[in-house]
Amino acid sequence: MTERPSLDQDQFLTVLSREEAVARFVAALQPKPLGLEIAALSDLVGRVLGRDIAAPVDTPPFDRSVVDGFAVSAADVAQASEAAPVMLALNGETIACGTLPRLALAAGTATPIATGGPIPRGADAVVMVEHTNLAADGRLVVSRAVAPGQNIAFAGSDIARGETLLRAGTVIGAREIGMLAAVGLAEVEVWRKPHVAVISTGDELVAPGQPLRPAAIYDSNGPIVAAALQENGCDPIRFGAIADDAALLEATMREAHATCDAVILSGGTSKGAGDLTYRIVGSLGAPGIVAHGVALKPGKPLCLAVCEGKPVVILPGFPTSAMFTFHDIVAPVLRTLAGHPERAEVTLTARVPVRVPSDLGRTEFVMVALAETASGRVAYPIGKGSGSVTAFSQADGFVTIDALSEAMPADTEAEVTLFTPHLTVPDLVIMGSHCVGLDAVIARLGAHSLTARSLSLGSLGGLAALRRGECDLAPIHVLDPATGTYNRPLLSPGMDLIPGWRRMQGLVHRLDDRRFAGAVDVPTAVATALADPACLMVNRNQGAGTRILIDQLLAGAKPPGYWNQPRSHNAVAAAVAQGRADWGIAIKPVADANGLGFLPLGPEHYDFAVSAAPRAPAAIDAFRKAIAEAADALKALGFIPASEAP
Amino acid sequence: MTERPSLDQDQFLTVLSREEAVARFVAALQPKPLGLEIAALSDLVGRVLGRDIAAPVDTPPFDRSVVDGFAVSAADVAQASEAAPVMLALNGETIACGTLPRLALAAGTATPIATGGPIPRGADAVVMVEHTNLAADGRLVVSRAVAPGQNIAFAGSDIARGETLLRAGTVIGAREIGMLAAVGLAEVEVWRKPHVAVISTGDELVAPGQPLRPAAIYDSNGPIVAAALQENGCDPIRFGAIADDAALLEATMREAHATCDAVILSGGTSKGAGDLTYRIVGSLGAPGIVAHGVALKPGKPLCLAVCEGKPVVILPGFPTSAMFTFHDIVAPVLRTLAGHPERAEVTLTARVPVRVPSDLGRTEFVMVALAETASGRVAYPIGKGSGSVTAFSQADGFVTIDALSEAMPADTEAEVTLFTPHLTVPDLVIMGSHCVGLDAVIARLGAHSLTARSLSLGSLGGLAALRRGECDLAPIHVLDPATGTYNRPLLSPGMDLIPGWRRMQGLVHRLDDRRFAGAVDVPTAVATALADPACLMVNRNQGAGTRILIDQLLAGAKPPGYWNQPRSHNAVAAAVAQGRADWGIAIKPVADANGLGFLPLGPEHYDFAVSAAPRAPAAIDAFRKAIAEAADALKALGFIPASEAP
Repeated sequence: MTERPSLDQDQFLTVLSREEAVARFVAALQPKPLGLEIAALSDLVGRVLGRDIAAPVDTPPFDRSVVDGFAVSAADVAQASEAAPVMLALNGETIACGTLPRLALAAGTATPIATGGPIPRGADAVVMVEHTNLAADGRLVVSRAVAPGQNIAFAGSDIARGETLLRAGTVIGAREIGMLAAVGLAEVEVWRKPHVAVISTGDELVAPGQPLRPAAIYDSNGPIVAAALQENGCDPIRFGAIADDAALLEATMREAHATCDAVILSGGTSKGAGDLTYRIVGSLGAPGIVAHGVALKPGKPLCLAVCEGKPVVILPGFPTSAMFTFHDIVAPVLRTLAGHPERAEVTLTARVPVRVPSDLGRTEFVMVALAETASGRVAYPIGKGSGSVTAFSQADGFVTIDALSEAMPADTEAEVTLFTPHLTVPDLVIMGSHCVGLDAVIARLGAHSLTARSLSLGSLGGLAALRRGECDLAPIHVLDPATGTYNRPLLSPGMDLIPGWRRMQGLVHRLDDRRFAGAVDVPTAVATALADPACLMVNRNQGAGTRILIDQLLAGAKPPGYWNQPRSHNAVAAAVAQGRADWGIAIKPVADANGLGFLPLGPEHYDFAVSAAPRAPAAIDAFRKAIAEAADALKALGFIPASEAP
Repeated sequence: MTERPSLDQDQFLTVLSREEAVARFVAALQPKPLGLEIAALSDLVGRVLGRDIAAPVDTPPFDRSVVDGFAVSAADVAQASEAAPVMLALNGETIACGTLPRLALAAGTATPIATGGPIPRGADAVVMVEHTNLAADGRLVVSRAVAPGQNIAFAGSDIARGETLLRAGTVIGAREIGMLAAVGLAEVEVWRKPHVAVISTGDELVAPGQPLRPAAIYDSNGPIVAAALQENGCDPIRFGAIADDAALLEATMREAHATCDAVILSGGTSKGAGDLTYRIVGSLGAPGIVAHGVALKPGKPLCLAVCEGKPVVILPGFPTSAMFTFHDIVAPVLRTLAGHPERAEVTLTARVPVRVPSDLGRTEFVMVALAETASGRVAYPIGKGSGSVTAFSQADGFVTIDALSEAMPADTEAEVTLFTPHLTVPDLVIMGSHCVGLDAVIARLGAHSLTARSLSLGSLGGLAALRRGECDLAPIHVLDPATGTYNRPLLSPGMDLIPGWRRMQGLVHRLDDRRFAGAVDVPTAVATALADPACLMVNRNQGAGTRILIDQLLAGAKPPGYWNQPRSHNAVAAAVAQGRADWGIAIKPVADANGLGFLPLGPEHYDFAVSAAPRAPAAIDAFRKAIAEAADALKALGFIPASEAP
């Protein structure tokens, strides 16, 4: 009998509600700011003030002129006008900025004063230079009356000495720095930034920049968590990605716990490593683990611990799960340690056009992309799964489905929490099948001052979205078996087709696979493959144009591997290159990128379905132009622009 | 004859419209990003991507399991159910994360696989561990069917090799860092940050942290501009505050221009220094000054130059003017040099309850504070003048009045541009006369989980705002001459008074002023002062309670200085301390802070007018409690809580 793997750990979790998990974590930690430190004015942007600041001086520190002109006694010029100007003797000094007046102002006199100059004793107003002239006898001619106090900023009128200037807890920006500088403070007490250890664990992790071993993946959680810590007022201390070596992991975790204010682990995706990590966390100090398993989706495996007064958190291994749990549960606590105010969430309302199923009993976060459509603002769920990291960048925010709901019904007007407060709505929304050629076209939209967002929904998903008015363009490549033509037969009434490009499809195999050495074309290669029961194929998903071609080639046969049905050319090429399959049908650029042999079969048509009465006709025109402008780039990628196709 | 001061420079300006000034600046500079540099993943937060990034690998790089369970051939378990489970033989390996499968999966078998493990050859689905059991004979019991592809993430399904992952111009945050890490990129090309020289000029400037000379002020523009540069993607290079020394200033400006990508000067408030600066800018290279004088309020003296391809800007000296012109005119150009996207402004609509006069022919920015009132959201203009730096912190944003308007009429529904995207509406809005004692009370509101904003409008301004429902509390200290009592006679029907505290008022004089040496009380001191025509008083503004007392004391006399009428106790004390006047009436804590002699006159009552039917009764109750809790702090400040007053 083989060794039974340790795979059932989830069964031992006591899954807590989100609220209960947070309550236990907070009760065990009692989070509060860690302490104060002195920071200089030049290092304050983004820091949080630790104490109320009272102004140590009046600002301005003296009564000063706010114009260029002449200090006077207002009573002297109370009757002055253009018709009846008043003559004043000029005093023998000019009050510039930064110079103290030497002479008191006597009745019937005026003293030249610059903006910012201190008002001399005896003056109670300033006449603007524009309302004066110099007489031939050297006296000043004042042609406009001024009221007492006019054009004077009195001492303390901006900030009075003793007044509270800024309050503890204020996040410091340029405005606050100006206030501190104005009262002469060169440094202030701010909350110390928590030093937070970031540890990734798992044999499968490779640091970015290193070559990727077979079966390994790059450590993305470490860099994401480090960046998210920076965005939440903490200093990340990177301990790198640690393999599943008990001694090394324990030594690293002990050092991190001893030297940092908090420890964040992310468990790779390996449960074996997880077991080890949980055991070590349990040994770092009381009270230890307070929650392991939280009714969140994504994020159920989250583990929260407090060891000797410091938070120790094990985030789920999948990036999306890690980030949602970090932001929802961990960041608020770390912000408190950092003295940062609660994160101000920006939300808006949008219609979710499709039904979103949800697990009863778990609070579920669903990422959405926003689009302004003919039918209003729409939030489109991005269903890439918690293993995805691209979902985050395509999403504008997320909707939350209550633990008591089994689904969010289609057309719900949902509250969307934005990832960043500034929502940039793209000019063109593109939903359908993705192609690297599309990237080349989108890259040229910038020259037309247009932005686009592309979401991969597959050809049929894109057509459905276009039909509902949720996107502007649907890139498709669907073969109609009845007519043997691509794309056009799929259009609904009221849709047009913008020609795109052709992508040469063919049979891919490893170059060192002797079985295909003699195959001169696809039919001979397929015959060879079918003759060998050890020869595994990789298929494509139902609905793909390529799948229809494959079924035609197989003529009813269902050889081994037939049920292996990935959704993309890239997955087919990867399966063959990595030996999980021996042949499949994919496009030539992808075969080339994977170093595979390629027997051409025929061109797939990649075109764009569009409404005949589009929401933004000028943007659609620009998109047509961008396709034409991208012709050379498309050819360099191995595609044939439709305009140049036979 | 005295030397005529050089004060008329504004008359030589050719004032351009805002649009014309921007157009000339942009035409002369042709701003574009400065260049690319390589930055490591850990240094990317807030940087701007310089090139489109195509994924160099598929993510995931192989077909992987998204659950803990058993890799199978879906066809084998197509009929499995609780009632009719399917038995499979277990293969002799467990596929952990990071380990390459050694064995191909044959029909009728299953291989244990962990979440993230690579799918073995021959498998096309994964059964979750929860849907399996181990039979006594060591075989796997599968009690749930799986579809082909189920629980598998196919290679490239998240990011396909060659796909554009991120586009040039993207501002990088945690999400983007995760994507770059996931495809193994340890560094990327970002736009280089412009190095921008920051120079303050003026004899009157003192660096924060240094003692303040008489007639000098602290340099706040230097620190504000440096921080605003950081907030706009630039690296500030501080050249400090330079006195009006032609040789030093020219050397500094030449070095700044030679070594930095841009130069920002702020001219103190001195026009003499200004003349010098303009001349030097003119000599730094072609084309030189392109706009000098822009029809903006505040901000008219703004000077824009381009010298040998680098922007050189002279900001107005007053902090508010400097910041509005920086953000409106200069920041957009610097953001382009930094490769940063246009700043996304967040705006909202609010009613401006009062008429705001505006200069015809100048685009005017008026700072406003927002409040949620009984009559909806109100934007209250903060009329502190361009010399103010506190206005910035009390304001939530600003309204813009068109150059063609002479005023914004009262009750305009205006668009408010927010300074920060997150608007925090305070629980209590306090408008009226300010007192450092009020700061002590507000400091205690935090313990009641309340926030407050206090705006200084004077007692009568506060009462008017309360009458209009624009604030919750109006702190007032107004003597009714008819009854000789404070505050209560001023209330309108429907207002109540919350008792505050008493502030001892008295006559202040310099301790070394021999004339007051023999004065035993205020009447004898006033008699002494009136007897000496060289003895200058400082009065208070009309409407102040203290003014009524002063007029009673003077009994109709109007001695020298009577028309010098500042609006605060602090200004009175500063005028006496700095020798601009010899006596005045102020409160004792302010006299003490300024080191002045004090002859007590009588207590001023500082109380809070409030609506009898307040918008937020619980917050008002908390405020009453906070006054009681602040009793000791008030006494330490020299005040007498009303509850302890005779």
